[in-house]
Amino acid sequence: MVVEGWLARAAAARPDRSALQTPGGDWSYAELYAAALAGAGELSARGAGPGRRVAIALPAGLAFAQALHACMLLGAVAVPVDLRLSPSERAQIADGASVVVEEPLATGSTGPPAAIVSGHALDATAAVIHTSGTTASPRQVELTYGNFLWSAIGSAVALGLDPRERWLCALPLSHIGGLSILVRSTIYATTAVVHERFEVDRVLAALREQEVTVVSLVATTLARLLDAGLSSPPALRCALTGGGPVPGELVARARAAGVPVALTYGLTETCSQVTTTPLAAPDGERPTAGPSLFCTRVAIAGDGEILVQGPTVAPGAPSPDGWLHTGDLGSLDPAGRLLVDGRKADTIVSGGENVAPAEVEAVLEAHPQVLEAAVIGRADAQWGEVVTAIVVTRPGTALDSEALRAHCAMSLAPYKLPKHIVLVAEPLPRTHSGKLLRRALR
Amino acid sequence: MVVEGWLARAAAARPDRSALQTPGGDWSYAELYAAALAGAGELSARGAGPGRRVAIALPAGLAFAQALHACMLLGAVAVPVDLRLSPSERAQIADGASVVVEEPLATGSTGPPAAIVSGHALDATAAVIHTSGTTASPRQVELTYGNFLWSAIGSAVALGLDPRERWLCALPLSHIGGLSILVRSTIYATTAVVHERFEVDRVLAALREQEVTVVSLVATTLARLLDAGLSSPPALRCALTGGGPVPGELVARARAAGVPVALTYGLTETCSQVTTTPLAAPDGERPTAGPSLFCTRVAIAGDGEILVQGPTVAPGAPSPDGWLHTGDLGSLDPAGRLLVDGRKADTIVSGGENVAPAEVEAVLEAHPQVLEAAVIGRADAQWGEVVTAIVVTRPGTALDSEALRAHCAMSLAPYKLPKHIVLVAEPLPRTHSGKLLRRALR
Repeated sequence: MVVEGWLARAAAARPDRSALQTPGGDWSYAELYAAALAGAGELSARGAGPGRRVAIALPAGLAFAQALHACMLLGAVAVPVDLRLSPSERAQIADGASVVVEEPLATGSTGPPAAIVSGHALDATAAVIHTSGTTASPRQVELTYGNFLWSAIGSAVALGLDPRERWLCALPLSHIGGLSILVRSTIYATTAVVHERFEVDRVLAALREQEVTVVSLVATTLARLLDAGLSSPPALRCALTGGGPVPGELVARARAAGVPVALTYGLTETCSQVTTTPLAAPDGERPTAGPSLFCTRVAIAGDGEILVQGPTVAPGAPSPDGWLHTGDLGSLDPAGRLLVDGRKADTIVSGGENVAPAEVEAVLEAHPQVLEAAVIGRADAQWGEVVTAIVVTRPGTALDSEALRAHCAMSLAPYKLPKHIVLVAEPLPRTHSGKLLRRALR
Repeated sequence: MVVEGWLARAAAARPDRSALQTPGGDWSYAELYAAALAGAGELSARGAGPGRRVAIALPAGLAFAQALHACMLLGAVAVPVDLRLSPSERAQIADGASVVVEEPLATGSTGPPAAIVSGHALDATAAVIHTSGTTASPRQVELTYGNFLWSAIGSAVALGLDPRERWLCALPLSHIGGLSILVRSTIYATTAVVHERFEVDRVLAALREQEVTVVSLVATTLARLLDAGLSSPPALRCALTGGGPVPGELVARARAAGVPVALTYGLTETCSQVTTTPLAAPDGERPTAGPSLFCTRVAIAGDGEILVQGPTVAPGAPSPDGWLHTGDLGSLDPAGRLLVDGRKADTIVSGGENVAPAEVEAVLEAHPQVLEAAVIGRADAQWGEVVTAIVVTRPGTALDSEALRAHCAMSLAPYKLPKHIVLVAEPLPRTHSGKLLRRALR
């Protein structure tokens, strides 16, 4: 199936509507379309064309969006490059591309107009994302126009859609969480507010003064905003929070501060959201990541692994059994809402018992003197592995390992209790998108 | 492609959410699902099954919705029957059905559970609608699950989607305008407020007191609500108005009364909306029916006929050229917004000049003393046809034909001026859904 070009449609239907708001300037849909047409002309002259890869090594902002849409106008495949990677890692990503964009494209016509596609074939590849990979080396995920379209549809059904939506993106555009905001906003013909990186004061100001209606966050950025005094942002209807485990205490704290949190579970391979808490259906006691997105199916394998099927799943991602095996562990409550328990590969096997690190971490982080905690398995001759916790305490606290172990014993079975607790002062190592880098702890 | 069952999904994700609110009672999604399961058991025992037609001859309300969803759970094809038709017309519609439902189905289990489908194949027929037909005899339109899904998606992109949506339906459920509200609300897992028929006081009360966020209207019902004093309904974000020409004066009057009107152009063959004014993009001087729905394409044929292509078009509807020929005349403005000029078959050819009756009617209805007007062609030896107007004036007015013709001459080319003007007191003949029955005037 071929659908009408998303940007051309938005520019025709809502030419004056703000497409992008950035600290570096704003573009209406008419302006973005004109810039993308000019950019497509330049890219075409440089060898880009249908199905060919274009590496985009630009900071999050107008020029990135222009290059992305120029690719889509040509039917070329956008390959965003994370600028925080090392030069050799970046070179590796750019290697398979026919064009590498490292400077903004021309915004005025520079030659004959390029051959523009009249629509998007839903099974054509729109973008290739290199995942951050917390347990293995980065891998490529090819996402189609259909993946992005169904993701946008599912998100709208779960969260609703304000015709005046202004979705704040302070996530890397080289990751699906950020990139999907740009694409989704174009499909809706609504506004993306794009920051080059997460800066707490800038995000706070945008939430307070720029009528942001939705913001995408991870647990650490949500916590930083609350620490900085975020309270009842006037236009915000959804703080969509995911990208890893979100402690229940943090959700409660956000809600108490008048921040309408909706939790989500998502993956690069599913073009972002798999499950999302509907705004109109608040959770009960324990916050879940919500029911599956519209037209997405979630199942739990016999070993507890989360499986996904549906039109947002990248064509190359499912196993021969037809399901995407996420590598995450979880369960579904009777209402079909997902509870994520951690990474399958992180599972600690101690004396024949399986221990999910995320469960132990959640208990540790519930202690008022604990800032963050990581739990890993350490090789042990007697037990196979033993549960080991690395704990960051609040400055000036006198917490010791025994007190922490006693705290854990109130909530956890004996075999889950950390045998070793290491108290540290510096923050835990995380990926750019906030996921805990357990392998760096081992 | 097969998608998860819509009602099962809504009942799992939002069991306590109100699915239906009617003067005869309310049902949550859990209650509607339970009733539909029981209804499916009864239908199955009576011979209904996948692909078989079930005629639903019930008034708009809970029992109708139950029967509709019971059909969808079985994979059976729902055939709503307009209860205002004559017994022989109704018998004709029910003729091809394997089951005719004329009494509410059982809401408690009456036997072994029926075989329930696990999802909806998007190319399977969901419903058959018999169109009201202003120019020809009624015809059957087979609409698929995919048609309903894409219609719901396009509507959400055009109008936005409030997770707490409450969409008021006071249209017949045997017509696509009404039926699509029920299906769309289930897809969104939001609330449909259903009235058995349009009663101005009841609709007014619902708009004022029941937190209705969207209401579907036609020009005459919008005018009646304004006449009855409708003003700034508190929760209403959209009065979606279509089903025929809507005079610009009426739109201006509604907006002045704080009623957020969005115009739409739709057909049974396109599962309702084809074009819709986005709420965030108000029109300029002359109200249009807006740009095409997301993923729908509109083109204008050489003779001015409106052509439609896209995933909401019933599979059997397009001509061999791949386009649905609507039989309506219109044009697209530079922003791609549709201006509807009337029915192609209504076009009057007078002295070799084409005259669109809707254009002349709009000018007549702009006169403050005119309530409504109809323009037809009358056979004439000299001119082929001559433009003839039937005009209903306000009670007590002294308006005469000469004054009306002078009024028209200010806005219309001489060849479009009515040669004959017939002043009448009674309302013009219309279909149940408010379309002018020109053939009855000839």
